[in-house]
Amino acid sequence: MSATSRLLEPVHFTRVQFTDAFWAPRIETNRTVTLQHIHRKLEETGRISAFDLNFTRKVPSSIVLIFGDSDPAKWIEAASYALATRPDPQLAAQVDALADKIIGAQQPDGYLNTHFIHVQPEMRWKNLRDLHELYCAGHLIEGAVAHAEATGNPKLLHALERYADHIDRTFGREPGKKRGYPGHPELELALVRLYHATQNRRYLDLARYFIDERGQHSPERPHYYDIEALERGDDPRAYWAKSYEYCQAHQPIREQAKVVGHAVRAMYLFSAVADLAGETGDESLRETCDRLWDNLVNCRMYLTGGIGPSRHNEGFTTDYDLPDETAYAETCATIGLMMWNHRLLQLEAQARFADVLERGLYNGFLSGVSLDGTHFLYENPLSSAGDRHRAEWFECPCCPPNLARNIASLGKYFYSTSPGGLWVHLFAGSRTVLRPGRQDVTLVQETNYPWDGAIHFAFQMAEPEEFTLHLRLPGWCEGYTLRVNGADAPARPAANGYIEIRRVWKRGDEVEYTLEMPVRAVYANPAVRQLQGRAALERGPLVYCLEGADHGSLALDRIQVERASLPGGFTPEFRPGLLGGVVTLKGRGQVIDAASWGNALYRPAPPALKEIDLLAVPYYAWGNREPGEMRVWLRTV
Amino acid sequence: MSATSRLLEPVHFTRVQFTDAFWAPRIETNRTVTLQHIHRKLEETGRISAFDLNFTRKVPSSIVLIFGDSDPAKWIEAASYALATRPDPQLAAQVDALADKIIGAQQPDGYLNTHFIHVQPEMRWKNLRDLHELYCAGHLIEGAVAHAEATGNPKLLHALERYADHIDRTFGREPGKKRGYPGHPELELALVRLYHATQNRRYLDLARYFIDERGQHSPERPHYYDIEALERGDDPRAYWAKSYEYCQAHQPIREQAKVVGHAVRAMYLFSAVADLAGETGDESLRETCDRLWDNLVNCRMYLTGGIGPSRHNEGFTTDYDLPDETAYAETCATIGLMMWNHRLLQLEAQARFADVLERGLYNGFLSGVSLDGTHFLYENPLSSAGDRHRAEWFECPCCPPNLARNIASLGKYFYSTSPGGLWVHLFAGSRTVLRPGRQDVTLVQETNYPWDGAIHFAFQMAEPEEFTLHLRLPGWCEGYTLRVNGADAPARPAANGYIEIRRVWKRGDEVEYTLEMPVRAVYANPAVRQLQGRAALERGPLVYCLEGADHGSLALDRIQVERASLPGGFTPEFRPGLLGGVVTLKGRGQVIDAASWGNALYRPAPPALKEIDLLAVPYYAWGNREPGEMRVWLRTV
Repeated sequence: MSATSRLLEPVHFTRVQFTDAFWAPRIETNRTVTLQHIHRKLEETGRISAFDLNFTRKVPSSIVLIFGDSDPAKWIEAASYALATRPDPQLAAQVDALADKIIGAQQPDGYLNTHFIHVQPEMRWKNLRDLHELYCAGHLIEGAVAHAEATGNPKLLHALERYADHIDRTFGREPGKKRGYPGHPELELALVRLYHATQNRRYLDLARYFIDERGQHSPERPHYYDIEALERGDDPRAYWAKSYEYCQAHQPIREQAKVVGHAVRAMYLFSAVADLAGETGDESLRETCDRLWDNLVNCRMYLTGGIGPSRHNEGFTTDYDLPDETAYAETCATIGLMMWNHRLLQLEAQARFADVLERGLYNGFLSGVSLDGTHFLYENPLSSAGDRHRAEWFECPCCPPNLARNIASLGKYFYSTSPGGLWVHLFAGSRTVLRPGRQDVTLVQETNYPWDGAIHFAFQMAEPEEFTLHLRLPGWCEGYTLRVNGADAPARPAANGYIEIRRVWKRGDEVEYTLEMPVRAVYANPAVRQLQGRAALERGPLVYCLEGADHGSLALDRIQVERASLPGGFTPEFRPGLLGGVVTLKGRGQVIDAASWGNALYRPAPPALKEIDLLAVPYYAWGNREPGEMRVWLRTV
Repeated sequence: MSATSRLLEPVHFTRVQFTDAFWAPRIETNRTVTLQHIHRKLEETGRISAFDLNFTRKVPSSIVLIFGDSDPAKWIEAASYALATRPDPQLAAQVDALADKIIGAQQPDGYLNTHFIHVQPEMRWKNLRDLHELYCAGHLIEGAVAHAEATGNPKLLHALERYADHIDRTFGREPGKKRGYPGHPELELALVRLYHATQNRRYLDLARYFIDERGQHSPERPHYYDIEALERGDDPRAYWAKSYEYCQAHQPIREQAKVVGHAVRAMYLFSAVADLAGETGDESLRETCDRLWDNLVNCRMYLTGGIGPSRHNEGFTTDYDLPDETAYAETCATIGLMMWNHRLLQLEAQARFADVLERGLYNGFLSGVSLDGTHFLYENPLSSAGDRHRAEWFECPCCPPNLARNIASLGKYFYSTSPGGLWVHLFAGSRTVLRPGRQDVTLVQETNYPWDGAIHFAFQMAEPEEFTLHLRLPGWCEGYTLRVNGADAPARPAANGYIEIRRVWKRGDEVEYTLEMPVRAVYANPAVRQLQGRAALERGPLVYCLEGADHGSLALDRIQVERASLPGGFTPEFRPGLLGGVVTLKGRGQVIDAASWGNALYRPAPPALKEIDLLAVPYYAWGNREPGEMRVWLRTV
C-alpha cells in the first residue's frame, strides 16, 4: 500500500478473531441467519434476477427500484467478508453465482447498471442528481473489492475495473467529459478502495475529481445539476428537495461549515473526504472533516449515535433539533457515522473519534437488527408510543445489507498499528494478530465488555520487542486502574485520549485495564428544546431505555424520576435470560396513577402519583419482545 | 318561524348592543378595519372579479382557487351583519356591488359557481368529494340570507333560491337525480337557514336528504364517491385521503361514534345535524350529537378549544393525541366548534355546551385575529419555538372572513329565550332586548368580564311579568354569590348548569352575580402523552401562556414551575398598556442557566437552575408583539 498521511493503519478484519459472548455470537448469527435472510429477500424482490436483464418495470419507476443493484452489491460485500473469516461452501456458491450474474450483465463498453441497461437506456448519465446511478457503481465496486480479497478470484473485480474505467472516460474536467458527480455519494470512497485493491492511481484521481468538483458553481458557471436538468428538459427550480444541501452539493466541500441534508449521503461523502485527506495529505480536507465533525457531534447527534432527525429529507435540520419520538436516525446513517469516524481515527489518532464510533456501534447501529438477525429497524427513534416495529424487510432495503457487511467485518474497528505502536480502540474478547514493528504480535483480549469494565490483555510474540501500547480511555470513563504484569502502572492518557505504555514487550506479558462502569445519568444541552427536564441512563458504552414489556400496562410517558435519585438509585444487574443476556438497571420512579383520574380531559387538580419499580434495558435491544412503548429520555422532577 | 324541538331560541344578534371594553371595540375594529382588509385582499386575489367570468386559470387548478367563491360569500355575510347593526354607506355600496356581481354570474338554469361555469364546465357535479362545489353553494346561500335580512333587498336571496332549486333538481333519491352529497359539508346548514328565511320546506328536506344519504354504502351498493370516481375514469382507491373518514362519509352519521377526519368538515356537518335535530325532533340525530360531543370534548379538544391536531388531514387523529407545538387547530375549526355548540345549547339547554363555546370564543377563536384586526392565524398551536407568525392573508383564506362573520354577529351567542325563560349564556357589558313572555324586556348587563367576575344585571320593561332568569354557572367557576335587589339569593344551579331565578320581574330589578375568578392550574388527563408533567394556567374563561417578549432572551422550554407554587404563586394584575389591556399573571419559576453549561451536547451533570420572574398573558393575545416563543403548557417539577 502506498504511503499515506494517516497516523494509524487499521487492522484487517480477518486478523481479529472474536472469542467473546457479545460479538462472536452476533457475527455468527449474521453469517448463518441474516445473510441467508437477505439473500432470500433479494431473490424474492427480483433484485438478483435483475442482472439477467429480462424483467419488466414501468417508467417512471420508484427510485427504490432504480437503485436496486446496490442491495445485491452490499450483500456480496457482506458475504465475502463472512467467507474471508470462515469457509462456507454454500455461501461461496451463492456468492459465485451472483458474481457471474453481475458480470453477465455488463455491457461491451463496461457499463453496468440493470435499470439503465434494460429499462431506460436513454437516461444513462442524464440525472446524476436523483437516480443513484453512480451510487450503485460504488457499491458494486465495494462488493467486487471484497469479493476478490475473500476468494482470490479477480473476475468480478476486473469487471468493475472496466466499469470504473468507463466512468473515468465519461466524467472529469477534460474536454468531452461530463463535469458531473454522484447525487448520492458512495462511489468516491469505493474508488479509493479500488485504488488500494489495484494500485491504479486513476481511481484515486477520479475520486478526488468527484470530491473537488462537487458543489462548484458561480454566477458565471451554472451548477452541474442545473445543467443536466435543463438538458433533460426539466426545470432545475422544480427540484423536489428545494436545495442542493440535500445532497451536500450546495457549495464546495471545503466551504461547508454545517452538516446538512441527507444523513447517509453526508456520511459517505465525508468518509471519502477523510480517505482522500489520508491519501493526499490535503490539510484543507482534514480541516473540513474536523469542522463538520464538531458541528455534528456537538449540535446534531442523538445520544445513541443516531443522526438525521427528519424523515422529510432523511437527514439534518438545525443545530440542537433532536426530537426523540420522531427521530428518523436511519440505521445506514449511523453506519456512515461509524465509517467516517473510523477513517478520522486512523487519520488523526484521536480517541474522540473512537468515542463516537463506539457510541454508534453499541446503540444506534446495533438497534438496527433484532437479536435473532431477521428483523430490522430502518429508523431508530429514542421514544416510541408502541407504534414502531421491526420489519423483515423494507421497500427501500438499504439498511439490512449495510448492517450485515459491517457486522461481518467488525474487527476492523477494534485495533490499529502505527510505526512502533499498537492501538486498542474498542474492547471485546478477541485474539488478534498485529504488526506494530518487525514481527507479528498476537494480542489476546479477555473481557466481559460491555457488561463489565475489566479487560485483560496478554501478548504472544516470538521475540521481545519495544513498542507502545495505546489503550483508549473511553470518553465516558471517569475512573480506571492499570496494571502491567501485576504491578500498578499509574498512567494518564495523552492529549489524544490514549494511555501509552511504552516498553519492551515479550511473550506472556499481561495488562489488566479496569474501566469503572457506574450507572450514569446524562442530560442534554439547554439548547436542545425537546429534552429539557429529562435525563437518560447510560452505563459503559451503552445507552439505556425503558420498555413497555417491563412495566406492565403503564404508559411510559406517565413515569417520572426524581433527579435526586440519579444516577445512584439505579443498580446494574445481569439478567442472563433477558434479551440474550443483558445488564439491566433497576431503580425506582413515580408514575401517574391514571386510575384515580376519571374521565375529564383537563382538571384543576394534579394527578396522583405512586411509586413504581423501573427496569432499564440496553437501547440496542429494544423492540425484541412484544410490541410496546420505549423511552430513552425520562422526565425528571 | 316554525315550531321546533329546540328548548331555547337564540337572541338575534341585532338585538344585542355591546357596551363593554372587551368586545365592543373588537366588533368596531372588525367592521372598520378587518372587513375592508379582507375586501381588498379578495379584490387583489381576483376572488371578486371572478364573478365577471373573464379570468384565466390553468387546469388542473389548486383546490384553493376552485373554491374561491366561498370567500366573497363569507365576506358578504360578514359585511351584511355589520350593516345590520350599524349603517355604513360605503360598506353598503361594496356589498351591493358584490351582490350584483354574484347575481350576474348566475346561469339560466340557476347554476352559480365561477370555476365550473368558466373554467371546467365539463366537470360540473362530477367530483363532489374533492371540488367543494356544494360547499361554495352553501356559503353563497348563507351570504344571501344575511344580505336579505340586513338590507331588506331580496335580490341575492332570490338568486340563491334559484341555485338551491337547481341543486334540489339535481340531487336526491328520486329517479334521474344524483344520489350525491357535499364532500365538504356546509350546504346542509345553509339550506336550513334558507328554509328559515323562505319558509320553503323543500330546502329543509334537501338538507335532510344530504345528511341521511351521507356515508350510505353496503356490499350491494357502492359508495357515491366511488361511483362518481369511476364515472370520471378515476380509481376510487387512489383517493389521496385514503378513507372517507376524512370527510365524515365513511358511514352514516347515526353510526359514527368518534369525531374523525377534517375538523371543519366535521363541525359544519354536526352543526347541520343539530339543526336538523331541532327542526325535526329526530332523537337519533340528537343522540348522535351527544355521542360525538362526548368524544370530542373528553378526548380530542385542546385546552383552548382548538380541535384537529394534524396538519396532514387538517383534522383529527386518535383519542388523547394533543401535541402542543404541532397543533394544527385551525381557526375555522374552532369557529365550527362554536357553531355546533351554539346549536346544541339551543337544542338541549345544557351549560356544558356554553362552556365549550366560551372556551373556544375566548381562546382558540380569538387568537385567530390580531389586536389590530389585520393579521391572522390559520393554525393555533399551544406552543411555538418562535417560528409561527400572523399573516395578512393565506393562500387558502378561509379563516379571515370566517372570523369576521362571527365577530360581526357575536351577540347571537350570548342570550336565549324559552317560553317563560330568559337565558344568559355569556357575560359582557351589553344592552339586549329579549322577549321571554308577552313583552320585550331590556336586559342591561354591566361587567368587566373576562377580567373580573362581578356581573350586574338590570331590567327594563313596561309591566311586571313573571319569568325565570337562567344564569349560566361556568364550568370553570367554583364559587359565586348572587344577590337580587340587594338581598342574598342562595341558589344552586339546576342539573343543566344554570341558576334559576323565577319571580315577577319589574323595571329596575337588579341582579348582582359574582363569579370568583382565582388563578387556576390545569392538568391534562394521563392519557394525553404529550402533556404529562406539565400544567397550564387559566383564569376565568381565559387560557394563559408565556411569551418570549416578556422573558428576555430565555428559551421558554428551559422554564419549569414548582408544582407546589401552583396556582397560588401566580397573581393577577391588570396591565392597561399591555396588549390592549389585559390581566397578566405574575409568578416565579426556575430556568435552566444555559450560560453555565458549556459546549457539550450531553453531559452527566444536570444543568444549573436559577429563579426567574414569570409573566403569563392571555393566550388569545399571543403573537401581537415581536416574533418569539410561546408556551401554554409549562413543565412542572
